[in-house]
Amino acid sequence: MKSFIAFFALAAAVFAQDRPAPIISPEVQSDGHVIFRLRAPQAHEVAVSGEWGPNGAMTKDAAGVWSVTIGPVKPDLYGYGFVVDGVRILDPANTAIKPMRSNSTSILDVAGTKPSPCDRQNNVPHGTVHLHEYDSKSLGRLRRLRVYTPPNYDSDTSAQFPALYLLHGSGDNEATWTELGRAHVILDNLLAAKSVVPMVVIMTDGHATSPSGPERANNLQAFERDLIDDVMPYVAEHYRLRKDRENRAIIGLSMGGAQSLGIGLTHLDLFAWIGGMSSAVRAPEQTLEKLFAAPDQANAQIRLLWFACGKDDFLLKPNQAFDALLTERKIKHEYVETEGNHSWPVWRRHLTTFAPRLFKTVP
Amino acid sequence: MKSFIAFFALAAAVFAQDRPAPIISPEVQSDGHVIFRLRAPQAHEVAVSGEWGPNGAMTKDAAGVWSVTIGPVKPDLYGYGFVVDGVRILDPANTAIKPMRSNSTSILDVAGTKPSPCDRQNNVPHGTVHLHEYDSKSLGRLRRLRVYTPPNYDSDTSAQFPALYLLHGSGDNEATWTELGRAHVILDNLLAAKSVVPMVVIMTDGHATSPSGPERANNLQAFERDLIDDVMPYVAEHYRLRKDRENRAIIGLSMGGAQSLGIGLTHLDLFAWIGGMSSAVRAPEQTLEKLFAAPDQANAQIRLLWFACGKDDFLLKPNQAFDALLTERKIKHEYVETEGNHSWPVWRRHLTTFAPRLFKTVP
Repeated sequence: MKSFIAFFALAAAVFAQDRPAPIISPEVQSDGHVIFRLRAPQAHEVAVSGEWGPNGAMTKDAAGVWSVTIGPVKPDLYGYGFVVDGVRILDPANTAIKPMRSNSTSILDVAGTKPSPCDRQNNVPHGTVHLHEYDSKSLGRLRRLRVYTPPNYDSDTSAQFPALYLLHGSGDNEATWTELGRAHVILDNLLAAKSVVPMVVIMTDGHATSPSGPERANNLQAFERDLIDDVMPYVAEHYRLRKDRENRAIIGLSMGGAQSLGIGLTHLDLFAWIGGMSSAVRAPEQTLEKLFAAPDQANAQIRLLWFACGKDDFLLKPNQAFDALLTERKIKHEYVETEGNHSWPVWRRHLTTFAPRLFKTVP
Repeated sequence: MKSFIAFFALAAAVFAQDRPAPIISPEVQSDGHVIFRLRAPQAHEVAVSGEWGPNGAMTKDAAGVWSVTIGPVKPDLYGYGFVVDGVRILDPANTAIKPMRSNSTSILDVAGTKPSPCDRQNNVPHGTVHLHEYDSKSLGRLRRLRVYTPPNYDSDTSAQFPALYLLHGSGDNEATWTELGRAHVILDNLLAAKSVVPMVVIMTDGHATSPSGPERANNLQAFERDLIDDVMPYVAEHYRLRKDRENRAIIGLSMGGAQSLGIGLTHLDLFAWIGGMSSAVRAPEQTLEKLFAAPDQANAQIRLLWFACGKDDFLLKPNQAFDALLTERKIKHEYVETEGNHSWPVWRRHLTTFAPRLFKTVP
């Protein structure tokens, strides 16, 4: 064993040379204060910008390392970045990145004294997240997809499972619901508590068109085609999913909420469970004319139509208007206003509230 | 359908407001030139730094967007980043990130006129990459793991597969072999060409200790314990793997090459196929004393010991010395010197060369 150590100690030394002392950032202290650090000797102005509140100006030490102490910060997960001479960057010392179209956000994880629904727990069985790339025929290119299977999926090989399509927001991609949303952890925990039905969760890429081109106006139509013509057949081929509408749900956040509500409510033949969080809804009456023309028929098909918005969300008014419209048109639904703004702490809580309602008998 | 569009057009508009024009970067032109762009109105000095060659100074336009044209660049995948007032950052306009301990490297993909072994092809069956988090009892914490299963894994449910443990370098993590190394794509392509045996590939996190603490000197011992006591039982439980040493291979690059050669050659009871690429080997004679004490016995157990290094790699001399040592001690092996330096284009080619040798009868 001794000689084994010698072999490796020398190998490690190769990499220790000519490197500056590593930066620790973020450093979460036991009282909830957080220290952020960035080495930037030549920068003129550096600040930290995060979901917990206003920006914090950082100060530079003699070694060129900028730092600031923030908080105490309430236990949760937060997106944050540094602003270096006007450029927003992620924290290079932190390996936890929020997957986004624009990669400039790191993840701060402040643990509480007891585990939250999105904290991974050792004594809970864990499902698996699978990465797929599929050829979208409707979009003519390769796309990414993540699929969560519950802990019993591999052992219970004759079982078929209900499917939840879980859509992300405008700044996100198909990885964000797991990396920052912790959807897989939330479902593991809810399942261990017997609060949810075991389900497969499909997390798609909501950006069917380039975010920067003129075709962006057609993004949601393009996404709908991709979802129905490509994603749904692909996952049906690769996973043991129940095939009836009663075993399909679609929910999303922000842009993904407009997608889930819009696609769900115009495809009741495919989805019986429909939801939205902080949804980017602007619903002129004529949009859902088919739905509104036969509310009794729609109400017989909809097992649950649930949407929620934080009271401080900039999309609160459109959500209230959508609630009023559905009420006026006699479409049964539940609309919930919660604490919070347009941010991931809210959406993780919404998922934790909504998932237990899915695929169960509604009285 | 028209009303459906109206519903979404308004939702999209919510996100179009108050955003500056999006930046396109990198923009790969048909002749192999690449334009890089970064919005940084307040920065004083910006350059692009990439694996293809020397840094390129960028210039600022009136809108505060810095840009430079590089190339032509030979078709391949390259890591790169921007240096903004001395701070290395990734390209925020590029969603392809090299997974690393320090997140400051984006991925440039320059396609050639015909597909390379690491280009995903539509007419080839694709395997799946699975993400796992496991509780490492030996390290006392949660760790990440990626597992590739070949295309026939799910359909051929009675088959058991050989296992390749594929280790990364010092700057990387368990995601780098797929995101930048394209190991899953390389294996899909080799399998379609009938060049490799279908195998499961386990990609671990090689950083068993904190890279910044004094315990770093023990990283490879800690990694060995985690691999043997935690990773191997975990994957044996979750995947249909063959259980004999003849169906286990371990190979790695750089730091991971020191790990694969070190662990492999001291655990011939577990691994019959051992390899390294640009390995960080420093092998004093006494390290492998047990191996060297009984070369005939070792040679009977080793199905293939293969290692390679680029001619311009800073680790060339240690690899040549290791080759000479093994020759002197009569341990059968193959040492190959290839074009290239200490970079991912070389390691993708090495994997493409080495994988077809695995799990086949050696004459």
